[in-house]
Amino acid sequence: MSRDHIDLCSETLQTPCLVVDRSRISANIERLKQRFAGTDVVFRPHLKTIKSYGAAVLAMESPQGPAAVSTLREAEEFGGKGITELLYAVAIPPQKLKRVSALRCTGVDLQIVVDSVEAACAVAEHAKSTSDRIPVLIEIDVDGHRGGIALDEHAYLIDVGRAIARGTELRGVLTHAGESYRASTAETLVAAAEQERSGALAAAKALRDAGLACPVVSIGSTPTALSAGSLAGVTEIRAGVFMLFDLFQLGVGVCRMEDLALSVVTTVIGNQRRKNWTFTDAGWMALSSDRSTQTQAVDQYFGLVCDIDGCPFEDLVVLMVSQEHGVLAPRPGSSAALPELPIGTRLRILPNHACATAAQHAEYKIVDRGRDVVDVWTRFGGW
Amino acid sequence: MSRDHIDLCSETLQTPCLVVDRSRISANIERLKQRFAGTDVVFRPHLKTIKSYGAAVLAMESPQGPAAVSTLREAEEFGGKGITELLYAVAIPPQKLKRVSALRCTGVDLQIVVDSVEAACAVAEHAKSTSDRIPVLIEIDVDGHRGGIALDEHAYLIDVGRAIARGTELRGVLTHAGESYRASTAETLVAAAEQERSGALAAAKALRDAGLACPVVSIGSTPTALSAGSLAGVTEIRAGVFMLFDLFQLGVGVCRMEDLALSVVTTVIGNQRRKNWTFTDAGWMALSSDRSTQTQAVDQYFGLVCDIDGCPFEDLVVLMVSQEHGVLAPRPGSSAALPELPIGTRLRILPNHACATAAQHAEYKIVDRGRDVVDVWTRFGGW
Repeated sequence: MSRDHIDLCSETLQTPCLVVDRSRISANIERLKQRFAGTDVVFRPHLKTIKSYGAAVLAMESPQGPAAVSTLREAEEFGGKGITELLYAVAIPPQKLKRVSALRCTGVDLQIVVDSVEAACAVAEHAKSTSDRIPVLIEIDVDGHRGGIALDEHAYLIDVGRAIARGTELRGVLTHAGESYRASTAETLVAAAEQERSGALAAAKALRDAGLACPVVSIGSTPTALSAGSLAGVTEIRAGVFMLFDLFQLGVGVCRMEDLALSVVTTVIGNQRRKNWTFTDAGWMALSSDRSTQTQAVDQYFGLVCDIDGCPFEDLVVLMVSQEHGVLAPRPGSSAALPELPIGTRLRILPNHACATAAQHAEYKIVDRGRDVVDVWTRFGGW
Repeated sequence: MSRDHIDLCSETLQTPCLVVDRSRISANIERLKQRFAGTDVVFRPHLKTIKSYGAAVLAMESPQGPAAVSTLREAEEFGGKGITELLYAVAIPPQKLKRVSALRCTGVDLQIVVDSVEAACAVAEHAKSTSDRIPVLIEIDVDGHRGGIALDEHAYLIDVGRAIARGTELRGVLTHAGESYRASTAETLVAAAEQERSGALAAAKALRDAGLACPVVSIGSTPTALSAGSLAGVTEIRAGVFMLFDLFQLGVGVCRMEDLALSVVTTVIGNQRRKNWTFTDAGWMALSSDRSTQTQAVDQYFGLVCDIDGCPFEDLVVLMVSQEHGVLAPRPGSSAALPELPIGTRLRILPNHACATAAQHAEYKIVDRGRDVVDVWTRFGGW
């Protein structure tokens, strides 16, 4: 980065821009690592949120990984930087297998995921024809959230396991307790984590009872990783958004306001005083259109507005967005007054969903409990 | 682009990816241009949707423009390619003026917009101190949609005009009938267009009556540009999404299904047959989280699903999205059956909002009424 001193109020800072607080991301990572210190459970951070090498090295146990990714582009980018223990944690169609093998040829131990006999057969056939024994995990559905083989489909699970083992290496089972995102109490979080663990273990046992190898039992989501009681039988945990946290995770109850490490810096561009509206240059292009907190107890609309030091104004939210306009207003139902925000005022917006907001930007400005930009981490997108 | 033949079903095509149908975009542009052919009204396409030089040259009257942009990054990118008649159509804070002047120094006639005395004074002061007489338009609020000076604030409007004229060039007035997006009948569209025209003209008249110059009367939105009856007194029209159209504009009623020029190509990665769900590799990262059709008569959820040739399946929508998963299902309330969609099937998704979906991608694959990729247009983001 440039040697020129720049802070979040500098005229030369272009807004909107994305900011990460280094002390906060470091503390968030340390907190999760500490949960698994002294256990046999491998921590495999999911890099889909951050998509930046600068953050990946903070989160991983070693410069080689392990880590999880959500696109082959991530696998290639991170693989090219020496992160060799990777898991592509999305079910794979046959068209993507050539690219997997090409990356594995460069020395990256990329594992993949399937949840059907069709996909298992395609991988096995590919492995036999290329002699690339790609390690495969079977996705298990523990809570009806999305994909995966349901817990009462053990016969089908074994068919999938056998189809894999006929042509390549069955590495284990994987699940993601996506329904834990709907939790909002300590009890429901602990229950979701136990459901995730016990479901994955039951699947592993079914495979093992059928004489199949299942060395890996991989589970994880940010809420369950932070809430799990027992991890007995689990070999690895995945989580991603815990590094940054966001208003949605705040609503789930797994972080505090002062843990939120990601924000968007924006500049006031106008006011409509009759309507109690202030306009900024951060619209959906900078914040994303994510409205995930709409289903939670506190609706944060398109984000919560803070002063430039990150201190939230009472009940001031981004009420509406268009492409390059954010409309700030008191949260509907609140009696809070709109603060005086003259044109040119710099503000920080805490986003609903860190993954979605970060995806709108090409870099992070790094600050450290203050306004000074001390570093820049590039990030990437695409597939 | 590579000389290798590639089509939308090729194994080497990486999905998800963004596709534009060249015949459709060309016809959409021609249709709007024809509306203004033989009139004195200048057509100024808004490049915020497409953000690609390949499309800009199709839409503009000349290689120099004119065109509108939503970020200074767009102004710099397009200015660097010789598009010199540009309008930054978002109210500007003082911090951005240096960058405007730097670009104008390279020969780009970049106009800017203000809607307050504060901003007008800041621009006038900057212009005097730099001797860069930046042309300024005053934003007028004709329908309560967002920013701008309301029609009953003529005294304030004149104050803003005088503040500009004291230091730089008052070029005219600008408005955007954003509320026209809520229209859904020909009558309400025509009325919104007339409200936009008459409001802008009233503001221009107030300035002229006060002895201020107001050569430009700039109006526009895709719905009103396509619906306006009279354009008397208007000097220029702006519109952007008309090039691609999308499901939202279909719901407004200003295009037909067969005009939609943008789609996302995706690959089936799994099925949950018990739930009538099919999974694809196009989640919100590829589609955006935009849910704008939720307020319309037909809710398209996160997009409408078509076969690879672009023919929609009956009532098949992207019901839910996560980062890299799309969940396809019949539209709630529909009795349509989920078609058989084996793993590996290629599909096309029509998006709710072309601006938001395109923003998630770095390039367009260009097809021409078929599956063959005949060109690639790069696009850019950022500020």
